[in-house]
Amino acid sequence: MPYRAAVDEFSFMFDHLLDAPALRKTEKFAEATSDVTNAILSEAGKLCDEVLAPLQRAGDLHPARLENGVVRTSPGFDEGWKAIAEGGWIGMSADPEYGGMGLPMILTSAVNEMMSGACLSLQLAPLMGQGQIEALEHHASDEIKALYLPKLISGEWTGTMNLTEPQAGSDVGALKTKAEANGDGTYNISGQKIYITWGDHDLAENVCHLVLARLPDAPEGTKGISLFIVPKFVPNEDGSVGPRNGVTTVSLEHKMGIHGSPTAVLQYENARGWLIGPEQGGMAAMFTMMNNARLGVGGQGIGVAEAAFQHAMAYALERKQGKSIHGFTIAAHADVRRMLMTMKADVFAARAIALSCAMAIDMEEATGDAGWAARAAFFTPIAKAFGTEVGIRVADIGIQVHGGMGFVEETGAAQFLRDVRVTAIYEGTNGIQAMDLVARKMMDGGEMASRILDEIEEGAEAARADLPEMAEAVWQASETLRETTDWLISRDDLTDRFAGAVPYLNSFARVLGAHFHLQAAMADQGGPREKLARFYVNRLLPEHAALLETVRIGQDDLYAMDLDELSA
Amino acid sequence: MPYRAAVDEFSFMFDHLLDAPALRKTEKFAEATSDVTNAILSEAGKLCDEVLAPLQRAGDLHPARLENGVVRTSPGFDEGWKAIAEGGWIGMSADPEYGGMGLPMILTSAVNEMMSGACLSLQLAPLMGQGQIEALEHHASDEIKALYLPKLISGEWTGTMNLTEPQAGSDVGALKTKAEANGDGTYNISGQKIYITWGDHDLAENVCHLVLARLPDAPEGTKGISLFIVPKFVPNEDGSVGPRNGVTTVSLEHKMGIHGSPTAVLQYENARGWLIGPEQGGMAAMFTMMNNARLGVGGQGIGVAEAAFQHAMAYALERKQGKSIHGFTIAAHADVRRMLMTMKADVFAARAIALSCAMAIDMEEATGDAGWAARAAFFTPIAKAFGTEVGIRVADIGIQVHGGMGFVEETGAAQFLRDVRVTAIYEGTNGIQAMDLVARKMMDGGEMASRILDEIEEGAEAARADLPEMAEAVWQASETLRETTDWLISRDDLTDRFAGAVPYLNSFARVLGAHFHLQAAMADQGGPREKLARFYVNRLLPEHAALLETVRIGQDDLYAMDLDELSA
Repeated sequence: MPYRAAVDEFSFMFDHLLDAPALRKTEKFAEATSDVTNAILSEAGKLCDEVLAPLQRAGDLHPARLENGVVRTSPGFDEGWKAIAEGGWIGMSADPEYGGMGLPMILTSAVNEMMSGACLSLQLAPLMGQGQIEALEHHASDEIKALYLPKLISGEWTGTMNLTEPQAGSDVGALKTKAEANGDGTYNISGQKIYITWGDHDLAENVCHLVLARLPDAPEGTKGISLFIVPKFVPNEDGSVGPRNGVTTVSLEHKMGIHGSPTAVLQYENARGWLIGPEQGGMAAMFTMMNNARLGVGGQGIGVAEAAFQHAMAYALERKQGKSIHGFTIAAHADVRRMLMTMKADVFAARAIALSCAMAIDMEEATGDAGWAARAAFFTPIAKAFGTEVGIRVADIGIQVHGGMGFVEETGAAQFLRDVRVTAIYEGTNGIQAMDLVARKMMDGGEMASRILDEIEEGAEAARADLPEMAEAVWQASETLRETTDWLISRDDLTDRFAGAVPYLNSFARVLGAHFHLQAAMADQGGPREKLARFYVNRLLPEHAALLETVRIGQDDLYAMDLDELSA
Repeated sequence: MPYRAAVDEFSFMFDHLLDAPALRKTEKFAEATSDVTNAILSEAGKLCDEVLAPLQRAGDLHPARLENGVVRTSPGFDEGWKAIAEGGWIGMSADPEYGGMGLPMILTSAVNEMMSGACLSLQLAPLMGQGQIEALEHHASDEIKALYLPKLISGEWTGTMNLTEPQAGSDVGALKTKAEANGDGTYNISGQKIYITWGDHDLAENVCHLVLARLPDAPEGTKGISLFIVPKFVPNEDGSVGPRNGVTTVSLEHKMGIHGSPTAVLQYENARGWLIGPEQGGMAAMFTMMNNARLGVGGQGIGVAEAAFQHAMAYALERKQGKSIHGFTIAAHADVRRMLMTMKADVFAARAIALSCAMAIDMEEATGDAGWAARAAFFTPIAKAFGTEVGIRVADIGIQVHGGMGFVEETGAAQFLRDVRVTAIYEGTNGIQAMDLVARKMMDGGEMASRILDEIEEGAEAARADLPEMAEAVWQASETLRETTDWLISRDDLTDRFAGAVPYLNSFARVLGAHFHLQAAMADQGGPREKLARFYVNRLLPEHAALLETVRIGQDDLYAMDLDELSA
């Protein structure tokens, strides 16, 4: 059951759901023609199917390990990394001035998703690199850019993000790592960082850490945080690596999944670092990096979901069990069919949402329009949380389709769930995403939400003549979502919004998914896309109403029991 | 964060939800007074908290292994098994004539659930034994009973169930294992069986297999199946173990979880077996065993959910992160509170359903009333599927509450999910349970469903004066369920029922859960149970409407896409 990257699906979405032609009319992305796009997708697909997918199992069975202070990666990962780096896939969207390809984010998102489905553990390495490249492009000095960007883009060096400390997870402002100026433009960094993805390894000659730290006398909380780049080896001016810096790998975590991805505890002892952006300006720079990483993590969920679907589908077509008037394999059974269609329909919905987010980022980049920026900001938490929820749910269904074979590790069905489970946690838990959506992303008084709902309803109106029932269902769902959005906006006490934040985000995603399914059905009337859309609207959309009902309750019932009663 | 078995919760449910006093009025269970019951629960709680819970992690880290044909169990499991056996916990409900305690199933279910939360891998051993004891009590000859039951009840020997073969899983009728009469009352059994839980081990001196096999010229399918007992060592008449029988352990599975439970592939080569029940009567005997095992597996889900809740609750009370007007630990945050209350409210609902099923079994046993038998049969698939769904969902939420620590194996949060995942698969997948509910359990034209809904509505009417809103919500939900039940019954084509079987079962459980929460709220007005019930009715009950909407669709949209389109 080999993995096959969903190349054609991306092409369809670019042309029929995203209005890629509008993107190609911008000066910045004029060269991303349909031919170019398709050639790139197809080339990436080959890399995923032939080079990366075969590494996934090895990463699980032979985890990265720490030996005498050196991290050794899983068998074959060095060849996989080389193929990713040499193909130019790390710097797809990076600035051509430093060796990047300058391609739109919709393409990078598509390729990242494909790679995640092939081998999630390894794909985390280029994803972290892309985040660092983007942060440096936006916030670093020209010297730092000239020194680091070509190396990160070529894959000679890799990048990491260092936010979390034992006492500072979701609450980044509680971090204690210290930075002190040396007087020569460099800083000394000391402290401990945990959960550092690809924090150390043997795939590249240098590992560059973006580290959040606090200068002496900095204010408390997030306002007092500055960002530094701290390389494992201090680079010489010519780009060769110099002496070892004061950062050591204390340990690697023993995790439920993504065993091939080394998750490190790093200790900094007077490590030399260089400031990125202004002093106390670390959070703004970090948010640049995190927003795109969040979209990337959403894509990880979708990629694993795609792989888990293909895997379960192949098993269901092959496994004979019982008889039904519809056939002799388990795929003929109604409940198995329901599971398989749920997987496929949800992958479609999550993918369309993630690519729409990427499209908004591209249009912002190409036009500088603040409306596109606000749209990207609104879509980001939805793409992250829903993409990863779909990843987990679809991987879980995949196990169920396999029956007893799903619980036995040899089939690989369980690995998908074990690997993807973390995506709902890292880069901001899905709860944090939902709080971001109902608070920060609604500081505009609900304007962006309303604009998106207008589009959904315009789409439904336009579909009414051809697909009246489906169009009506989508329109109605959008109206219910609008009423609940108005209710949320009316709550000044943010805790009332937070009490329903997760179900609200999931409902928004459900309704967006229905919108995109309807658009796909319009483009393929009577064809498989219309049939899949009908399934989605029939069976997956209805939960939005139940979820939204719970959003409008507010906080009171959550605090009625005190903690002693709850834990009794 | 030590595990504490939910002793008081069972006492509350016995007295306030289940009408245990009615059970005590029967001759059979007259001795199970409130004092006796509480003493037993408290004794079992001590065993779970002090002896079994400390074994759970060792089972995960040091899986059972096959060495030179011998299965070695995890460290400490021998002491745990001894404590279970010597406490008499295996034969709690077994016939006192053979050493059992003759206690009602509500108590056995409670204790099994407690043990599952403490150490699921080990608890599977007594659960398998109980199934075998029950099958032998109902179907074996007096000689077999006299020889085997005392040994199984004392824990000197253990029991297994052998149904599955590589080509025969959910479709048991496809099995090929052969049985040939030897002419002396014994049979020769040959074939391969897979997924045999505790199929071999070093905890007891004998392992007794109940094996489904086919006699020469037996009809195809389930009608041609006979049941045999095949011991690892052939017993002498005095009960000592004699020569090794022709069954060997080929391998153990490498599984996602329950590493401490050896899951064996067993090869039978002319192994001596004894017929249980009549020739070709194997399925009926097996169903006796399976029904109670199904209830037991539901309890496993609930037990793990209880443990995962306690674990997450303790973490949430301890972990400081950010600040909120409600406090400084993460338990103060609205979304974490929502997760914790979901866990607690769902554990309550699933437990009440499982115990109601056990109560029906007891009343059937005590009164011989066919109505109780039908009620137990109706509740069994719901208790199994919902209990295990809750187990998986709650364990998954538990990981999320832990944030990054949830994905790191050291905390144990991930193990709950990895362990409990199998419960939705074995003893009949949850899809099979749902098909059983909408087909076999509705061959009465929906009479039992209707009777249960009548009770729910009577309960709601009685609560209307005190808790009007909650009562109305429960009454309305029951009516929606009734309409959908009528729709299901009206479909002659079973595939239309199967298309919505899983959401129907889950809705039934949701509504039953609301009913029991309402009863608990009535018994504790203004207290924590009313507050928890309000949360459940507010936030968990509403999904029933969305689920039931999908049930009434039927099969058509599932088969609109052909398999080529679905797998494209």
